[in-house]
Amino acid sequence: MFVRTLSDVRDSGREIVIAGGSARTARFITAADGVGFAFSDVSQGAGQEANLWYKHHWEANYIVEGTGEVEEVATGRKWRLEPGTIYVVGPEDRHVVRAETDLRLISVFNPPIMGDENHDADGSYPPTGPIPPGPG
Amino acid sequence: MFVRTLSDVRDSGREIVIAGGSARTARFITAADGVGFAFSDVSQGAGQEANLWYKHHWEANYIVEGTGEVEEVATGRKWRLEPGTIYVVGPEDRHVVRAETDLRLISVFNPPIMGDENHDADGSYPPTGPIPPGPG
Repeated sequence: MFVRTLSDVRDSGREIVIAGGSARTARFITAADGVGFAFSDVSQGAGQEANLWYKHHWEANYIVEGTGEVEEVATGRKWRLEPGTIYVVGPEDRHVVRAETDLRLISVFNPPIMGDENHDADGSYPPTGPIPPGPG
Repeated sequence: MFVRTLSDVRDSGREIVIAGGSARTARFITAADGVGFAFSDVSQGAGQEANLWYKHHWEANYIVEGTGEVEEVATGRKWRLEPGTIYVVGPEDRHVVRAETDLRLISVFNPPIMGDENHDADGSYPPTGPIPPGPG
């Protein structure tokens, strides 16, 4: 077993700025840990907007603090984000996350990301392994 | 994509009592969702102790609220649990979680659990798929 604190993550340089500067993420678990998922604690500042499209991953985001909304680009459908809500996106799900207040989310990726990548122009990360099938 | 709230989880009967009555868990994502991990929001009451040993899974637990400790049974080593700390256990890691105050944790399993299983006498869940290699 292993145990890590936010200080450990910061001291090892695994707290980084992502999504075009709109968010900060602390990468607690990455592909190198070999547990089959990546785990991050993400903060998006009030008023910030992130345009994202994980073409090669499934990601769950669970809201711990704050409010905002997530929009599915293909349909224009929007959901309110508040503590106790989770949104889950896959390769087909181009989406926009808007923070109304400061927003804190727990992010889990499968396949696990490396942890040092940043979003490309489409809001995507490079492939890191086989993509789960999703709910089908 | 899909979005779920704590009300959705409760209404669908996926908030259950586990670990011999010592904890309550809201199963937001399970094996049926096909995203390659399970995701739960777990509450363990102050003073409660859970004896656990996930022989067939890797699990990460991230402390969101409260304080306590986790003990590795094989070595007797203990770590303090407080917000911003994550502990990660695999098939070799028999462990005890003690809540000092009410403790709230985000739990992620790979392979994903079914969501309706409960701990056996050893504190284990039945196998649900290939076990990741771990950090090695």
